Amino acid sequence: MNRKIVAYFVGSVLRIEALLMIVPTIVSLLYREKEWIYLAGATVASFLFGYLLSFRKPRNMTFYTREGITSVALGWILMSVFGAIPLWHGVSSIGFTDALFETISGFTTTGASILTEVESIPKGLLFWRSFTHWVGGMGILVFVLALLPEASGDSIYLMRAESPGPSVGKLVPKVKSTAKILYEIYIAITFIEIVALMITGMSLYEASVITFGTVGTGGFAIRNSGCFEYTHVQQIIITFFMIVCGANFNVYFLFVAKKFKEAFKSEEVLSYLAIYAFAVIAIAINISNAFSSFGEALHHSLFNVASVMTTTGFASADFNTWPGFSRTLLLVVMFIGGCAGSTAGGIKVSRIVIGFKTIRKELEHFVHPRSVKILKFEGKPIEHAVLRGVNVYFLTYITIFAVSVLLVAFDGKDFTTTITSVIATFNNIGPGLDMVGPCGNYSQFSPFAKYVLMFDMLAGRLELFPMLLLFMPITWRRQR
Amino acid sequence: MNRKIVAYFVGSVLRIEALLMIVPTIVSLLYREKEWIYLAGATVASFLFGYLLSFRKPRNMTFYTREGITSVALGWILMSVFGAIPLWHGVSSIGFTDALFETISGFTTTGASILTEVESIPKGLLFWRSFTHWVGGMGILVFVLALLPEASGDSIYLMRAESPGPSVGKLVPKVKSTAKILYEIYIAITFIEIVALMITGMSLYEASVITFGTVGTGGFAIRNSGCFEYTHVQQIIITFFMIVCGANFNVYFLFVAKKFKEAFKSEEVLSYLAIYAFAVIAIAINISNAFSSFGEALHHSLFNVASVMTTTGFASADFNTWPGFSRTLLLVVMFIGGCAGSTAGGIKVSRIVIGFKTIRKELEHFVHPRSVKILKFEGKPIEHAVLRGVNVYFLTYITIFAVSVLLVAFDGKDFTTTITSVIATFNNIGPGLDMVGPCGNYSQFSPFAKYVLMFDMLAGRLELFPMLLLFMPITWRRQR
Repeated sequence: MNRKIVAYFVGSVLRIEALLMIVPTIVSLLYREKEWIYLAGATVASFLFGYLLSFRKPRNMTFYTREGITSVALGWILMSVFGAIPLWHGVSSIGFTDALFETISGFTTTGASILTEVESIPKGLLFWRSFTHWVGGMGILVFVLALLPEASGDSIYLMRAESPGPSVGKLVPKVKSTAKILYEIYIAITFIEIVALMITGMSLYEASVITFGTVGTGGFAIRNSGCFEYTHVQQIIITFFMIVCGANFNVYFLFVAKKFKEAFKSEEVLSYLAIYAFAVIAIAINISNAFSSFGEALHHSLFNVASVMTTTGFASADFNTWPGFSRTLLLVVMFIGGCAGSTAGGIKVSRIVIGFKTIRKELEHFVHPRSVKILKFEGKPIEHAVLRGVNVYFLTYITIFAVSVLLVAFDGKDFTTTITSVIATFNNIGPGLDMVGPCGNYSQFSPFAKYVLMFDMLAGRLELFPMLLLFMPITWRRQR
Repeated sequence: MNRKIVAYFVGSVLRIEALLMIVPTIVSLLYREKEWIYLAGATVASFLFGYLLSFRKPRNMTFYTREGITSVALGWILMSVFGAIPLWHGVSSIGFTDALFETISGFTTTGASILTEVESIPKGLLFWRSFTHWVGGMGILVFVLALLPEASGDSIYLMRAESPGPSVGKLVPKVKSTAKILYEIYIAITFIEIVALMITGMSLYEASVITFGTVGTGGFAIRNSGCFEYTHVQQIIITFFMIVCGANFNVYFLFVAKKFKEAFKSEEVLSYLAIYAFAVIAIAINISNAFSSFGEALHHSLFNVASVMTTTGFASADFNTWPGFSRTLLLVVMFIGGCAGSTAGGIKVSRIVIGFKTIRKELEHFVHPRSVKILKFEGKPIEHAVLRGVNVYFLTYITIFAVSVLLVAFDGKDFTTTITSVIATFNNIGPGLDMVGPCGNYSQFSPFAKYVLMFDMLAGRLELFPMLLLFMPITWRRQR
């Protein structure tokens, strides 16, 4: 293991974080809040530590999968630790564990909160809290890579570890150019949503914060009632952008490249929209009695299914009080999640589609044992490595899930709370059901359970393996 | 598809069922119950229908996987329909759906009951109800095969479809001989347990019924309180035989063949005992406050973990009232289940072990991308087909599970009841938590939910695929 390059990467991440924290510091200063000092302090601390780590550029800038994955895992943990400083010092009611939970929840775009009351928290801190969604949505190590022209090696692995989904296609031959294009699309979408919300009369501050939560599919809100109070038009705008950001960004690249035909044929995005439409209609019918009209039920179904499926976690109504079928369907959709190559969490639509195709092939194999059929996805044969990867992902996913539920169960909370708290953090959604429903929060858990859920949030965001590899002695051996 | 041979197989199953139903008819006559007539009627009906189906022996007795699998699925459905007749007519409080549910629950060794009160039901009917566990535990089509010397073809597939686990090893070169040896071991274990229970003072009738529930890992009881009232010694005997029947029967074959060294090295059985020991100790510590002494807690932990892990479903205490951690650990153990090649349900220990090894290999692959490591199980390399089979099994398992939960959720029961009713039927356990806990039952579900759970019981018992293939048009095409 080339430890020097790992230190260098992690250091670079912290320096970029310092750079990013200047934004909330300015916001805090503009609102003349005394908490700006914590933001400024965290900025300086993050910069100094990052500078120490990446002080000397390693002579050998070649890295392999192992270094890439370790950098991703350590980079995310350290940036969460430094990112937690402002909340830790700025909000008197919470300790370090809670601040770290909130920050990891932010960076991983989960949106699970331990804060019982947000409206009294200074604007600068809330801005930073939501800004972490925006930063975490796209990944920060890919950004580092885009800025480091000297690094060479398995950069595609690094991108793979940080990007949601079973396979990262390079849009253009070079990984760095791909990253650059994706960031441009991301910034454009952000800008458009902020403007759209401001047209409806929202302030620049509130529009920005809600947009960070939407495009990062994070879901931190700045009102105690979440998104309940926004107008229908505002909720529809948010719904639209949640769906946009849960789709595979490659499609937008195809649009930009004027390859409209290919864009409209994307198997993953079409499946994603089909699942969404099915769930919306099923739930709207199921909950129609609880609302004044079917239109109203449809509106809330559109919003909350989009929120849960894209793993954003905003709520326009307390879906914890909906009938059993709707609650269960929401849980299923939570597991599915958004598309690969989006900012959303969950298992990902492409994995679900590939999984279904694998099952169908197996069934056909029983009937025609000698037939050889090649599985295709997006019109192309699925590589054996991807197929194996999907299968192993499901196995690992179930294992982490079962162990987490067991560990959280030590807290002795009711069964629904226990299981949905793991579902909601592991899939980077935010709210679950019962005590962690849209009107509840995560503050009642023991510190132990909180650390388990933090691990789940990171494991879910980083596609499981980086977090597991941190605990494997083999990762740290010097050999090779 | 060779439909004639399917009809012939299914007909033979029904004729054997008729033969087996003579036993409870005699029991009923011995107790001078007027319900003997329903048992006798079902015997005749089953025989006649079976005779009609298998009247003409097909000229071509060669069969392939497709015919084998279809025969298994249809055979199990039809034998449940005919097996339901006595309960349907003999118990006035239940209709056909409930009788079918109870019978499928019996044959699949699930033990989930819709009866709210069992002690008033005639002894002959209860005997038949428990006898279905014994018949279903070992599988009936393999038995048919053992009796049909003329049939030739993919008989190993037929055995695979009916035997729990990822791979069926032939103990001896011929499938029929393997089946014969397994039946002999099964009968011997049954006999020993009946005698052991009778020594403790149990009547022949009660000892037989409890033994059928134990060795078939089914779990139908004949007292309203389940196994609460039995003495500690009786409960220990039952615990021992549950564990014996949840282990891979190949080990007993090795004992019989005096290959003790191999028998004691079985990776699956050792893992099975290790998981059992871990769960027993963890739960005993967790529940010790609820009992008068740690020994008492250990006793109930030993019994109920064995019951749940081997998917029997007997209960010596109401584990639904145990603390959250114990309840959750029991759920995890429910999913794991017993060994392949046993009468137990669940995912099976061998699949879990192979799954863990796959994950570890994947993690190592990240660190050393070019290393080629061959996975081994029971000291032998795992065939690629078995590995793929395990992966596809997990995928299919999750899919059926999610769809079932969603369909059962239409009933609007609480979340824990909904989800554990699917877990307990799909894994062929019996009791779940809350409304379907050890002191509850399945009578409150709608007919629709009951049919979903019946499908799950059959799918769980027959290793998923036969039940799915019934619904694939490709299965029924005449080609080939």
